[in-house]
Amino acid sequence: MSIRRERSILEEDLAKEIIAMECEALDRWGKGDPWGFTEISTAEVTYYDPYTERRLDGLEALRQFYASIEGKIRIERYEMINPRVQIHGDTAVLTFNLIDYVPASGGLTREVHWNSTEVYSRNNGEWKIVHTHWSYIKPKLQD
Amino acid sequence: MSIRRERSILEEDLAKEIIAMECEALDRWGKGDPWGFTEISTAEVTYYDPYTERRLDGLEALRQFYASIEGKIRIERYEMINPRVQIHGDTAVLTFNLIDYVPASGGLTREVHWNSTEVYSRNNGEWKIVHTHWSYIKPKLQD
Repeated sequence: MSIRRERSILEEDLAKEIIAMECEALDRWGKGDPWGFTEISTAEVTYYDPYTERRLDGLEALRQFYASIEGKIRIERYEMINPRVQIHGDTAVLTFNLIDYVPASGGLTREVHWNSTEVYSRNNGEWKIVHTHWSYIKPKLQD
Repeated sequence: MSIRRERSILEEDLAKEIIAMECEALDRWGKGDPWGFTEISTAEVTYYDPYTERRLDGLEALRQFYASIEGKIRIERYEMINPRVQIHGDTAVLTFNLIDYVPASGGLTREVHWNSTEVYSRNNGEWKIVHTHWSYIKPKLQD
């Protein structure tokens, strides 16, 4: 087996590990528990989503933001579409599109479509998130 | 001078270099020329913005997308707000909020507010973009 092939298997394992971490945090998120994400984010984490007025800097800012939505999110199920992990040394850029299926009035289900970026970095053998960016796919804006 | 202090100066220089590359591409972008970005993106680049239906994978996909908007963008000026460069080995995560000032009807100017993520990676001494994510700050959605 060539060195190149070995590396590719290692990278594949790492990609699976990163995706599994993300799914575990997403599972908790869908039950109203945002702390799965703070547990795997570093002190320096930077963060955007469609509700932030500006970039959030640092884990404490993220914790305060999440405290305001704890218990308020309910996602029935989600689809992680076409996840990709770009590995550069001790950094792994995980990107995927996401469909959340959210309970709506009248027993219906609403879909929310996301662009998702999670930059993981390895420190002392531990992979954690250093940057998160969530945005809507093709948001339909008011005029 | 301690090693720690030296590293910090090197990182500061690198941060400036990365921000300067980004501003150069943004300057061209505002004049309708998107190719400043493709010139500093790698073959593996992944890309989202509010107009993409799903993540774009690879420089060729990005080139095709940009070809459709070449010459159509006109930005009078922009403000790059609070740029931050998180450096992890050969990867640099540049994030900033951006205000574009865009000509509107009646001689007015419209503001467009962005969350911006650019992941740069060093390969053979050259820093290039491996991932881009543009999204609107707090988009006002239709009901």
